[in-house]
Amino acid sequence: MKLLFLNGVNLNMTGRREKGVYGTETLGDINAQLERFCKDRGAECEFFQSNIEGELCTKIQQSDADGIVLNAGAFTHYSYALRDAIASVPTPVVEVHMSNVHAREPFRHTSVISEVCRGTVLGFGKMSYFLAAESFLL
Amino acid sequence: MKLLFLNGVNLNMTGRREKGVYGTETLGDINAQLERFCKDRGAECEFFQSNIEGELCTKIQQSDADGIVLNAGAFTHYSYALRDAIASVPTPVVEVHMSNVHAREPFRHTSVISEVCRGTVLGFGKMSYFLAAESFLL
Amino acid sequence: MKLLFLNGVNLNMTGRREKGVYGTETLGDINAQLERFCKDRGAECEFFQSNIEGELCTKIQQSDADGIVLNAGAFTHYSYALRDAIASVPTPVVEVHMSNVHAREPFRHTSVISEVCRGTVLGFGKMSYFLAAESFLL
Amino acid sequence: MKLLFLNGVNLNMTGRREKGVYGTETLGDINAQLERFCKDRGAECEFFQSNIEGELCTKIQQSDADGIVLNAGAFTHYSYALRDAIASVPTPVVEVHMSNVHAREPFRHTSVISEVCRGTVLGFGKMSYFLAAESFLL
Amino acid sequence: MKLLFLNGVNLNMTGRREKGVYGTETLGDINAQLERFCKDRGAECEFFQSNIEGELCTKIQQSDADGIVLNAGAFTHYSYALRDAIASVPTPVVEVHMSNVHAREPFRHTSVISEVCRGTVLGFGKMSYFLAAESFLL
Amino acid sequence: MKLLFLNGVNLNMTGRREKGVYGTETLGDINAQLERFCKDRGAECEFFQSNIEGELCTKIQQSDADGIVLNAGAFTHYSYALRDAIASVPTPVVEVHMSNVHAREPFRHTSVISEVCRGTVLGFGKMSYFLAAESFLL
Amino acid sequence: MKLLFLNGVNLNMTGRREKGVYGTETLGDINAQLERFCKDRGAECEFFQSNIEGELCTKIQQSDADGIVLNAGAFTHYSYALRDAIASVPTPVVEVHMSNVHAREPFRHTSVISEVCRGTVLGFGKMSYFLAAESFLL
Amino acid sequence: MKLLFLNGVNLNMTGRREKGVYGTETLGDINAQLERFCKDRGAECEFFQSNIEGELCTKIQQSDADGIVLNAGAFTHYSYALRDAIASVPTPVVEVHMSNVHAREPFRHTSVISEVCRGTVLGFGKMSYFLAAESFLL
Amino acid sequence: MKLLFLNGVNLNMTGRREKGVYGTETLGDINAQLERFCKDRGAECEFFQSNIEGELCTKIQQSDADGIVLNAGAFTHYSYALRDAIASVPTPVVEVHMSNVHAREPFRHTSVISEVCRGTVLGFGKMSYFLAAESFLL
Amino acid sequence: MKLLFLNGVNLNMTGRREKGVYGTETLGDINAQLERFCKDRGAECEFFQSNIEGELCTKIQQSDADGIVLNAGAFTHYSYALRDAIASVPTPVVEVHMSNVHAREPFRHTSVISEVCRGTVLGFGKMSYFLAAESFLL
Amino acid sequence: MKLLFLNGVNLNMTGRREKGVYGTETLGDINAQLERFCKDRGAECEFFQSNIEGELCTKIQQSDADGIVLNAGAFTHYSYALRDAIASVPTPVVEVHMSNVHAREPFRHTSVISEVCRGTVLGFGKMSYFLAAESFLL
Amino acid sequence: MKLLFLNGVNLNMTGRREKGVYGTETLGDINAQLERFCKDRGAECEFFQSNIEGELCTKIQQSDADGIVLNAGAFTHYSYALRDAIASVPTPVVEVHMSNVHAREPFRHTSVISEVCRGTVLGFGKMSYFLAAESFLL
Repeated sequence: MKLLFLNGVNLNMTGRREKGVYGTETLGDINAQLERFCKDRGAECEFFQSNIEGELCTKIQQSDADGIVLNAGAFTHYSYALRDAIASVPTPVVEVHMSNVHAREPFRHTSVISEVCRGTVLGFGKMSYFLAAESFLL
Repeated sequence: MKLLFLNGVNLNMTGRREKGVYGTETLGDINAQLERFCKDRGAECEFFQSNIEGELCTKIQQSDADGIVLNAGAFTHYSYALRDAIASVPTPVVEVHMSNVHAREPFRHTSVISEVCRGTVLGFGKMSYFLAAESFLL
Repeated sequence: MKLLFLNGVNLNMTGRREKGVYGTETLGDINAQLERFCKDRGAECEFFQSNIEGELCTKIQQSDADGIVLNAGAFTHYSYALRDAIASVPTPVVEVHMSNVHAREPFRHTSVISEVCRGTVLGFGKMSYFLAAESFLL
Repeated sequence: MKLLFLNGVNLNMTGRREKGVYGTETLGDINAQLERFCKDRGAECEFFQSNIEGELCTKIQQSDADGIVLNAGAFTHYSYALRDAIASVPTPVVEVHMSNVHAREPFRHTSVISEVCRGTVLGFGKMSYFLAAESFLL
Repeated sequence: MKLLFLNGVNLNMTGRREKGVYGTETLGDINAQLERFCKDRGAECEFFQSNIEGELCTKIQQSDADGIVLNAGAFTHYSYALRDAIASVPTPVVEVHMSNVHAREPFRHTSVISEVCRGTVLGFGKMSYFLAAESFLL
Repeated sequence: MKLLFLNGVNLNMTGRREKGVYGTETLGDINAQLERFCKDRGAECEFFQSNIEGELCTKIQQSDADGIVLNAGAFTHYSYALRDAIASVPTPVVEVHMSNVHAREPFRHTSVISEVCRGTVLGFGKMSYFLAAESFLL
Repeated sequence: MKLLFLNGVNLNMTGRREKGVYGTETLGDINAQLERFCKDRGAECEFFQSNIEGELCTKIQQSDADGIVLNAGAFTHYSYALRDAIASVPTPVVEVHMSNVHAREPFRHTSVISEVCRGTVLGFGKMSYFLAAESFLL
Repeated sequence: MKLLFLNGVNLNMTGRREKGVYGTETLGDINAQLERFCKDRGAECEFFQSNIEGELCTKIQQSDADGIVLNAGAFTHYSYALRDAIASVPTPVVEVHMSNVHAREPFRHTSVISEVCRGTVLGFGKMSYFLAAESFLL
Repeated sequence: MKLLFLNGVNLNMTGRREKGVYGTETLGDINAQLERFCKDRGAECEFFQSNIEGELCTKIQQSDADGIVLNAGAFTHYSYALRDAIASVPTPVVEVHMSNVHAREPFRHTSVISEVCRGTVLGFGKMSYFLAAESFLL
Repeated sequence: MKLLFLNGVNLNMTGRREKGVYGTETLGDINAQLERFCKDRGAECEFFQSNIEGELCTKIQQSDADGIVLNAGAFTHYSYALRDAIASVPTPVVEVHMSNVHAREPFRHTSVISEVCRGTVLGFGKMSYFLAAESFLL
Repeated sequence: MKLLFLNGVNLNMTGRREKGVYGTETLGDINAQLERFCKDRGAECEFFQSNIEGELCTKIQQSDADGIVLNAGAFTHYSYALRDAIASVPTPVVEVHMSNVHAREPFRHTSVISEVCRGTVLGFGKMSYFLAAESFLL
Repeated sequence: MKLLFLNGVNLNMTGRREKGVYGTETLGDINAQLERFCKDRGAECEFFQSNIEGELCTKIQQSDADGIVLNAGAFTHYSYALRDAIASVPTPVVEVHMSNVHAREPFRHTSVISEVCRGTVLGFGKMSYFLAAESFLL
């Protein structure tokens, strides 16, 4: 079992911005914990972050993972390109958000990728990633 | 730590209808597994299901649980009464759906309760309940 | 052949309110005539009315009828709970309205249950119930 | 008592297209059965079909029937011309659809003629015509 | 100077329906008066009515009049065909309605032909035709 | 003169939740003051609260009061059932809200019952009830 | 018979602006011609123009004319105040526009006053005023 | 305690128009009764009416009252200017309507000032003013 | 292989109107060239034009062609009748427009027939017909 | 070079209200600074403020300035009268807002005057006026 | 004559995904056939594919082709950047889709680039590319 | 003080396209002038342009400037990614457009970044950049 943790635009700023909302741990910190979490459960994992929509599409197309945990950031709300990339591969994708997007601005209430993902986990801070991983490992 | 698993309208039919979508396990079967899952992690739990919106509101108001895992069924899409009940108590509530509601009819894409819940887990079949429970127990 | 005549919220007021629109026969009067009508055609029938949405859902779930004639009253316009209850049972349901709802207020032009009913009969006063019954007995 | 069975655009194709949905009986077959049904109840009847909206309006204006059973086909969804024709005569008109239009494409959920018809019967296949006739004859 | 008075669907019913709104004069009566009115001002005129949208388009295409007074009836609200026919000829067209369409049902508030007409006269009963004619003759 | 003070869903939580918004007096405290207020003016009064929509409808149908002061809580925004119940009785109903619903979430700006109530009083905290009562007693 | 010609905001600029659209005659020029036109037909007339919405309302309230010809300018599109002023007096009001508002920007397609006016004349340049006057004098 | 009773556009016509809806008492009559009502409760009061939106804004800005009872008339539905004037002063404003605006035309269902007022009283005829005053004096 | 070139409302005016947009060749000229084009490729062809929507539906129903090239003109934007006619026959239909309808008025951006056509070719002037034919012949 | 600084409704309250948002300088203070700023650059200037929409229109019509800096306040969002006044004069107008209107209530996101202004400067507090002036003086 | 065949996001997956819809030929296969097709007609051609929106814009800006055949993939539905790139060069662009996008999900019915393209060819599978090329070579 | 002038997609084409709208100066020309302008006022500056959305986000994240002047081009209308990048840094950003976007196509009237920028300057051609710079330097 191999998992790909895929993070989209601006998520490289995690832990450096809006710390009231996102906490003080960086994406690197979280990824390190996820790696341990996976290893403990006998799973392999890989990490990829990009601010460029097309690079995320390419990564999804080329991934050899058994499951993808995807936090698409703002691309969630308008990237039909990502949606089509997800639909074009057999790998199951789980959509993740750290914050409760439904309690924020209206534009964040719409996800154009949910329909083609297996499921969604949102609102639990960094724990959202762990629960999504769990959905593959339970 | 005590958890309340709260199920809304028509969820008493789980395992008896649309088995292609929901599987063949009944709500009783799932609850039994959840009970074991909680006990294994040293947590107490309680179960309640009703087809009557007002009884769900009353249950939320009176619950002494530390966390509520709520699958509101069709009430999700229009019950501002449930929304206000959730907002009126300090107990954190996690919204759960077994199916990927975003891949179904448009009316299921709107949740009037998400905004006042801590987070949402959807699309993982019965595993959605376990992941939501995990969010309190991790 | 057994038919369930199911009436929703406020229909217990039939014949006592807005007599210009609904006539002066009570729901009891109409049900008595429906009973004779069914008996004449060799069919059994049962009657149930409730102002509580959840009780209507439960009735639909538990009914052993071969067909349901449903006047959901105002629930027609927003009760996705009723819609899911109808969809969860194999029993065919026929939607009925006494008045021509399309000639009344705009909110009455939307039915959230039509899509999951077998058919609709509306606008013929109490005769709507008889025509709906006929659709099972012809 | 005289009834006019009026069929609009493309209904001359009934029984020749989408047989899974509409069955294999042609409009001629159905009309023959309706004729017998009316005769048995001591009523006279007339049949008219046209693909031309204006000819249907003219027919409605000139008809000497006591009641009209109208399946307007696709005109149902935008022909304000038919609507005005119906409103311009005292003859009561009953709207009929063979399929459950509410379970089909969204554009079929809107009827611009319902408001000026006495009632609607939809979803019962060819039986919709019989139930509508029954509404005049019961 | 030659004028064409063109009347659309259901206007052949003028004077025979909704007399409270439209008065008791028939379209023939009104046309006779319009003929006198034009003759008195040294103008020629022609009259045409059809319930068939396409025949109205053809008439507009082929007319040799110097101006057209058009009451399109219900076609006003959706016939882009008429709109294109009007736009395809250099003859100026004046839109006419006997009733105040803005004080009636919402669907009558939209005209898809106004934009390509020279002007509109509405709300003055049969006088609307005379005022529109006047706009060519003054 | 007899008044019914009718409170809907979650209003049993008044004084126990969101005290910043609603104050610290419970519904019981307020009702006690209203009882004195009515008695002082020579009027009788009755109190009823329910979280169940259908029970509120039934109460409205059966009430023998000369006037009803109704705070429907969240039902205000979607319960066409309550609306029909109000419309089905001759008793005048006054709609009441403690908070200024127009200064809160958008979904609270819509009331589906206002149209069938005599009037509305909103935004004055518990005083809204007294002013509504006053409207019957002045 | 006395007519009031009432012009709203910016119409004092007629003949000085956008001469391609409105021609080179000023409002004073047009009024002078209207005065002659009325005198020729034995009618009295009065003229009033204001850029201030409230002054137009007051003028309508106080006018002793038998008919009002109103070009409200941009107020046409949003002034419910003018609408209520028109509705509050028994004097019939005819709405007038020089240009074909339906062939201009979308916001000009909506008139909030049409519904309470007797009729509308639009698109004939200054002749619109004469035709509207004619509607009172013919 | 000093109250300002502020009336907007067309309210100077009260008692002279649509007497079926508004009764036969003029604004002057009502103000006289309000004056007595205030005096009886030891409060001072002032009255101002204008058809001009900007004069109402100026009055609100300059008022030294402790509370304002405002019937903005048709300005209610679109005057963001009034809204900003209300928001720019610390004086609490209570919105008042004599008729039940929610039972009238759709454009009257929207108030752009409610959000910045303390509360709203509507539907009680002239009594609406007294109840609003009471809200300051109770 | 036999092709039907079907032209709808106002296309008989091609080459006679808006020559800047449509060129100076008439529909007859274009059809002659299409005939040669088909003959060169060993295909038969037939031509039909009507301004009457119902006649186009009938033609589609009765055609024995192997493919239909359809320019529906303005019917494109609202004729659900044509849409149903296309859906009711197995013959593949290719939608054609000479102009780039997406660069014209908004109402031309909507096609109610695209969904049931095999494909669309638009924006190439008369060449659109040739490319559509090519799609059957290549 | 002469500039007119034109301020609309409620801007006379600048510096006296919502000081957190607008600072403590009054409109008089700002105007004094603008006067110096213009003089330093060899330009003349004039100042005008009104709460009355029609007076602002008249001022725009009569101004002999070479450029107008306009803060229309709340009129920005609905005054088509102001829009037409701006469009009716050749003088270029620059739209100004002190606050970032796009970060405030949704109704403030729409400006009905932007389309006819030369440009817009918003969000810089009092500096917005200076930058707008600069656009004429640079 | 030189043509650029430009393919956007996810089109590198052609022939590897959803083979039921897109067939089993890869983009490389199709391009090879297009190259022969062009060579046969004496035209040169170039091929470019990218998942990155900005790279497609840059390619359009720098291309020296006489015509561009563009399948923008999912970018079709939201990339105003591509739209502006197309509009910024004099090279004519033809929009291409292999599937009938109007018969798929609603978000695929909107193209933000159609308005600035010369034409569109859609629904013919890989033949869409050939027909588009033909539009430059015929 | 250091300023970053950041230009988005297609702005590298400035001065080479649509010269009627944008003038003949290239982005390089404008940047050279801005550099002088900043130097004259003692400020440092940096220039960056990219057609790739993600590169603009990265640049914003990494910039050490004291202020950013951003012309996002077409990204303005849909790039929530850019919006989040702006919100994630403390550096103030001023939104700039050369043309008056409100006088162009409707899709250009919406900016998804305005809300998180300090202010906006639009409509002044290249001067928009200078005024935005001025807002940091005044």
